[in-house]
This record gives sequence, C-alpha cells and structure tokens, in this order.
Amino acid sequence: MKKIITIDREFGSGGRELGRRLAENLGISYYDHEIVTELTKRSDLAEEYLEHMDEKSPTALFPITVAMTFGMQNNYHMEKQLAVYTQTAKFIKEIAQKKDCVIVGRCADYILKDLKPLRIFIYAKMDSKIKRCKEKNYQDIKDLTDKQIEKKIRLVDRERRDYYNFYTNLEWSDKTNYDLCINTSHVDIKDFALLLKKLVESIYP
Amino acid sequence: MKKIITIDREFGSGGRELGRRLAENLGISYYDHEIVTELTKRSDLAEEYLEHMDEKSPTALFPITVAMTFGMQNNYHMEKQLAVYTQTAKFIKEIAQKKDCVIVGRCADYILKDLKPLRIFIYAKMDSKIKRCKEKNYQDIKDLTDKQIEKKIRLVDRERRDYYNFYTNLEWSDKTNYDLCINTSHVDIKDFALLLKKLVESIYP
Repeated sequence: MKKIITIDREFGSGGRELGRRLAENLGISYYDHEIVTELTKRSDLAEEYLEHMDEKSPTALFPITVAMTFGMQNNYHMEKQLAVYTQTAKFIKEIAQKKDCVIVGRCADYILKDLKPLRIFIYAKMDSKIKRCKEKNYQDIKDLTDKQIEKKIRLVDRERRDYYNFYTNLEWSDKTNYDLCINTSHVDIKDFALLLKKLVESIYP
Repeated sequence: MKKIITIDREFGSGGRELGRRLAENLGISYYDHEIVTELTKRSDLAEEYLEHMDEKSPTALFPITVAMTFGMQNNYHMEKQLAVYTQTAKFIKEIAQKKDCVIVGRCADYILKDLKPLRIFIYAKMDSKIKRCKEKNYQDIKDLTDKQIEKKIRLVDRERRDYYNFYTNLEWSDKTNYDLCINTSHVDIKDFALLLKKLVESIYP
C-alpha cells in the first residue's frame, strides 16, 4: 500500500517544514511549490502568474465589482483559474498513483480521497505563528511589525480557506476532514517529524 | 517533568479505550469513572446521583421551565452541581500534582492548564461511532437501532459540550483547545495507543 500523506496548514504553523522533514525521514517525494514549477512546464502561463493564482479561489481574485465592470475579461481569468485547478488536480493524482509522497496544500486530501491518504492538518496559536514567521525571516515579512505579520497570516489563511472551500465544498481546517490535527505551538518540528515517521510506518507497515 | 495527559472524546470514538490503553502502556494511573467513585467517598451524595450529574452542566439538568416552577428546589440542585464540579476540580488537581496520569473528560485539560498537560481530543465519523458502540455492546444501547444509537451519541456529546462550555467558557471539541486531535474512524485503538506511548515518551523524555 502506497504511503500518501497530505498536509494542510495554517500560515506560520510550521506545516511546510514538518512535511519536508517527514518526507526526508521517510525517504519519499515531497511536493509543495514543486507543483507550481511543474505546472509552469506544462502550460503557456508564466510562473509569476501561476504563483499569483496558487491556492487562491477565483472569487478571491476577481471580486464581484470587477466582474460587473469587466465581464468578459473576468471570464478569461476565471477560466484560466479553473483550468489551472484542473491541471493541479491531474498532476497531484499522477504523483500519488506513481509513488509514495507528501503533498502540501492545494486540496490534495480531497483530490486523492479515493486513495485514502493520511490527511494531516497543522495549526498553532497566533503568537507562536508570528514567532515562527520572524524566525524564518521570510522575504515578504521581514520588515513588518508583529501586528502586520498577524494581518498577513490571517490574509493567507483566508485565501487558503476560500480556495479549499470553493473547490471541495468542505470547510478548510475543520477537523472532521482530517485524520490528525497537530497543534505546533509548543512542538519542536524536527522532533515531531521523527514521531510522525514512526506513525506513518505503523499505518503503512 | 510529570506526564499528565488529558483526553476528551466524542461518545463512541474509542477515546476511553485509547486513554486506558495509553495509561497501561506507560504504566501510569488512569482516571475516568474512578473520579465519580472517589467523589462518592468524599461526599454524602449517593453514587447514582453523582453519576447522573457527571459531565452535565447545571443548565442541562434544570431547564428554565423547571427553574421557574420550583425556584427554591432548583437552587438546591444547582448548588449541589456547582459543589460537585468544585470537588471534581480539586480531586483532579490533587491527582496531577501527585503522579503521572491520564485523565478522561471532566474539563481536566482546562482545570490543569497551569501544569501544561498534553491535551488530546478523540473524534470519529458517525458511522464509525455507531459501529464501535455496537461492538462494545454497552448495556444502555444494546437493544437500540442505528438511528437510536446515533440519537444517543448526539445527546451525550451535547451534554459534554454544555458541561465543558459552561465551566471553561471555551468551545468543546474546538481543536484550538487541544494539542492533538485524532480521528479514530480508520484507526486500530490498540495500535494507536502504542504510537501515542512513543509520542508521550518523546515529549516527556
């Protein structure tokens, strides 16, 4: 039985690092931003454009006022957005059918539901997420105050929620959609990735 | 550092069994119904009366119509109820200060928050909970249909929710109040209890 692990995560919760370390510990493939890179190869759209659309719902990108003013143009972008999601889903299915993998975000838990992946959700308290963001010193937040970082975290999570809810008709971050929800507020990600490895190995012996 | 683990759980999710097995695996004390037994020793109330009040909020036991009709009498029960909670909290604190333990339900995660317990919440899909209830063949559900068992599960969980929300002012089952939320729909409780042991040992080396 293939090891397929999907990880969704709040921004700043350490979900990406946990996923990457888990994949390394298990010696299996890891997909996060790699999905955007692959889609760039497969489409005629620029990487920047695909990045801008990544994990955003069409409704978030094109609010109703824009739609009313530029009806035709909006349809163009909306269609592109839906096409990109279709391509993303196709690619994610291809990966999971081929090999053991950890896939981060992008509704992978929902897209792969027939393969019964281990669906993990990572979350943390706001102060812990702000602290982790500052430690990581991400390019786009390094000059921000704590208040501004919190605003950014809420914005990214709202986009992820809209994206997930739009394509799955389920509620992002609702624990009923996951097998395991991990609060990383007081957790060392490196240590926890080792534990998760053991857990995965006992589920897929 | 003491190993203190609190487990809250949906009815039928296997949370109690998981807690008991975890305590056995770790060789530490386990408290669930044992708390009611201890309170019986400490108070002049009958065990049946304490059992009836166990994990129920005063508002659930005495709806507003009763309160209006039997004002004085209702106050008597309400006071008893609050006194029992106070005794429960006192006993839970005594246990946790004395020894390593697993404590199930009864707002233990909140009561012990200063001791930073590992707070676990156990949940599952409804069909899995009905199945588990039937396998366990509990006395009070053994002649019920699936529909009736589902009703019973919802009732017990509503009581637990009311109890938790009343005494903590937090939302029962909301993942932000726990460190780990485990969906047992597809889990073998015995295997998972062994994994949890490893996790606890890595957190409290």
